[in-house]
Amino acid sequence: MQTVLSQAQKAKEAAKILRQTETEKKNAFLNKLAELLDTKSSFVLAENQKDLDGNQNITPAMKKRLAISEASLKSIADGVRTIAGLSDPVGKVVSTLKKKDGLLIERVRTPIGVIACIFESRPNVIIDVAALCVKSGNAVIVRGGKEAFHSNNALAGLVHEALEFAGLPLASVQQLDDKRHEAIYELVQLEDYLDLVIPRGREELIRAVSEHARMPVMKHMRGLCHLYIDRDADIAKAIKIAVNAKTSNPATCNSVETILVHKDVADKTLPDLLEQLFAKNVEVRGDEKTCAYSPKCVPATEEDWSAEYLDLTVSIKIVGSYEDAVAHIEKYSSGLTDSIMTENKETAEKFKKTIDSATVLVNASNRLTDGGVFELGGEIGISTSRIHMRGPMGLEDLTVTKYVVTGDGHTR
Amino acid sequence: MQTVLSQAQKAKEAAKILRQTETEKKNAFLNKLAELLDTKSSFVLAENQKDLDGNQNITPAMKKRLAISEASLKSIADGVRTIAGLSDPVGKVVSTLKKKDGLLIERVRTPIGVIACIFESRPNVIIDVAALCVKSGNAVIVRGGKEAFHSNNALAGLVHEALEFAGLPLASVQQLDDKRHEAIYELVQLEDYLDLVIPRGREELIRAVSEHARMPVMKHMRGLCHLYIDRDADIAKAIKIAVNAKTSNPATCNSVETILVHKDVADKTLPDLLEQLFAKNVEVRGDEKTCAYSPKCVPATEEDWSAEYLDLTVSIKIVGSYEDAVAHIEKYSSGLTDSIMTENKETAEKFKKTIDSATVLVNASNRLTDGGVFELGGEIGISTSRIHMRGPMGLEDLTVTKYVVTGDGHTR
Repeated sequence: MQTVLSQAQKAKEAAKILRQTETEKKNAFLNKLAELLDTKSSFVLAENQKDLDGNQNITPAMKKRLAISEASLKSIADGVRTIAGLSDPVGKVVSTLKKKDGLLIERVRTPIGVIACIFESRPNVIIDVAALCVKSGNAVIVRGGKEAFHSNNALAGLVHEALEFAGLPLASVQQLDDKRHEAIYELVQLEDYLDLVIPRGREELIRAVSEHARMPVMKHMRGLCHLYIDRDADIAKAIKIAVNAKTSNPATCNSVETILVHKDVADKTLPDLLEQLFAKNVEVRGDEKTCAYSPKCVPATEEDWSAEYLDLTVSIKIVGSYEDAVAHIEKYSSGLTDSIMTENKETAEKFKKTIDSATVLVNASNRLTDGGVFELGGEIGISTSRIHMRGPMGLEDLTVTKYVVTGDGHTR
Repeated sequence: MQTVLSQAQKAKEAAKILRQTETEKKNAFLNKLAELLDTKSSFVLAENQKDLDGNQNITPAMKKRLAISEASLKSIADGVRTIAGLSDPVGKVVSTLKKKDGLLIERVRTPIGVIACIFESRPNVIIDVAALCVKSGNAVIVRGGKEAFHSNNALAGLVHEALEFAGLPLASVQQLDDKRHEAIYELVQLEDYLDLVIPRGREELIRAVSEHARMPVMKHMRGLCHLYIDRDADIAKAIKIAVNAKTSNPATCNSVETILVHKDVADKTLPDLLEQLFAKNVEVRGDEKTCAYSPKCVPATEEDWSAEYLDLTVSIKIVGSYEDAVAHIEKYSSGLTDSIMTENKETAEKFKKTIDSATVLVNASNRLTDGGVFELGGEIGISTSRIHMRGPMGLEDLTVTKYVVTGDGHTR
């Protein structure tokens, strides 16, 4: 077994090579990887079945995250091909300044370096992470959940086969060899080798990693997302979006947990909205005024306004004004994604400026907050940090700018 | 005395207002501040004199950093006027994607939020920090060194007068009231209120702050900078730059500490280079081959290659090849700023790509690595972190992007 330290050292050596690797070589890796995901699908599915067989006691939600199907494997492979098709962010000149004295100052995109990604359950993550990191010139150390042991090994094997094919260092993508839980904490202490940690999973995992890490951590802790139906909303549009934002995949962090409705449109909105939510088996926790519209509503308690349900439950509140809605969002939002339904351009502009969330939406479902939808080549995570970037973290966000200065004998 | 927590809470409230403040109001603050620095200069100088009188035992270098003169105050005021003249980064649209289905996805610059800046000695920092933070829409809590107590109070007083004049919250810029050293550590634990910490000063201070901080820290620990004189260098140009990079202000982090000379040009370079360095009272620690050029050279030990002298000392090594120079830089550089002297365009391009420092220079003095020179409106610090940004951190770097999505009933 390799030690955590020796793996981190190897990652740093690999990063030195990846930093300078031409785009064609990185794309050769990606295209090969996509091909292997297609041709070796039955092997991957068989290994995934071992994990499903070995974890009979997990919840249905966890099982759903763990399972790989022929279709999901195809979509993973397509994701890799999409990343191969994206332009290489490394070396991109972000800004150029030519000073009066002729000194040229450029900001150029460069990889971050070595990244660690700690995740749970969903084995497709290992492929997304490998593809995004290698294309952006970063080495990565991954640590998946033990419930996906066989699936992760199978997929990591394909990654290594593709790295070898492209002539890239195998240490570009490593699974942590040391399977002890403490190995994670040892890893995130190695600030001389690791430049960034991205934990994905339960809040406890993210919190524990953050507490131990000596390098920056890109994290998103919670997704308490709001949808506000303004006085000037198109009601039919608003109801369609509200139902979509709650029900299209309630287990995801970008699903809506609280719907705020302006009092002037409550009569027009609530009967239809409640009916459609109930038809989709949504439990509604409403404030007093909301509950007056249906006996099926459960009265909301203070806890409901700060609850991340992640299931078919939603809280609904009738607000007296736009300002009340904003105040509620400012108080309770986790800062991930909040949305307004309004046809009033001025109100929309005000909302975009005022609401300080990583993604602010107008007349669009919160569920659209996604690296794929944003055409970022998938996402390595969603950031609610307040430096580097905010929101779905894609290919370009795995780089940083450095300064390149060209003179002709310039001094100071 | 206000508690650390209550100051942090006030800062967060102020940040909410500053985030949405129009450019004109922020510029009104800056122009008033510049005017006050001019009209109240004798008051500031008198307060600064109290600090100089009260700290007789500090080193000459510290004294130099502490002292404010009529001229330096004028240059501080000019810096504030420069920042007023720069375009406001907040609200700038960085990228726009219009999807086929009409969904508009924009990345828009927004302030980071609440920043803490912990610094030592140089009282001008409080003005730079206040000007940069307010213009970029951030609230800031500053904590200066106790040796600059009167100077900082005088300058903070002017900042508050200017904030009041512009109708901005006084809590936009606060000095930490609690003067205990532990107050710093209490402050950087408040992750619910503080978004970023920037420590500036001695390595011990930066290290201590980093260890206690629960939020991201932008730091630069050391400045071990190299200048490599390539086989294809213009020797006269190279010598001029080497002398400038060492002697123009040796106490600064962007001064050169090690000069590498290609063996093929050693005979043409070293006699003149050494003569000019000795003429400026520079002590040279040379490898064996360098020492052969002058008996005045001191033989370098292994420690010299990792020494940040910050004074009139430099180490010089003759290298066998470009690759040897790169290997030396990769081994010893602190990643702040490294430079090559060469007329060979291919070598220059290779160096720019290979050297993984925050600023890479070609035929230009390392000393040019500066927010002012880069026209960033001064700098709040220099980052050797590997996320967010690298190098001198200016106005725009105090913002981050958020996503703004505009649809017309779009769902997922």
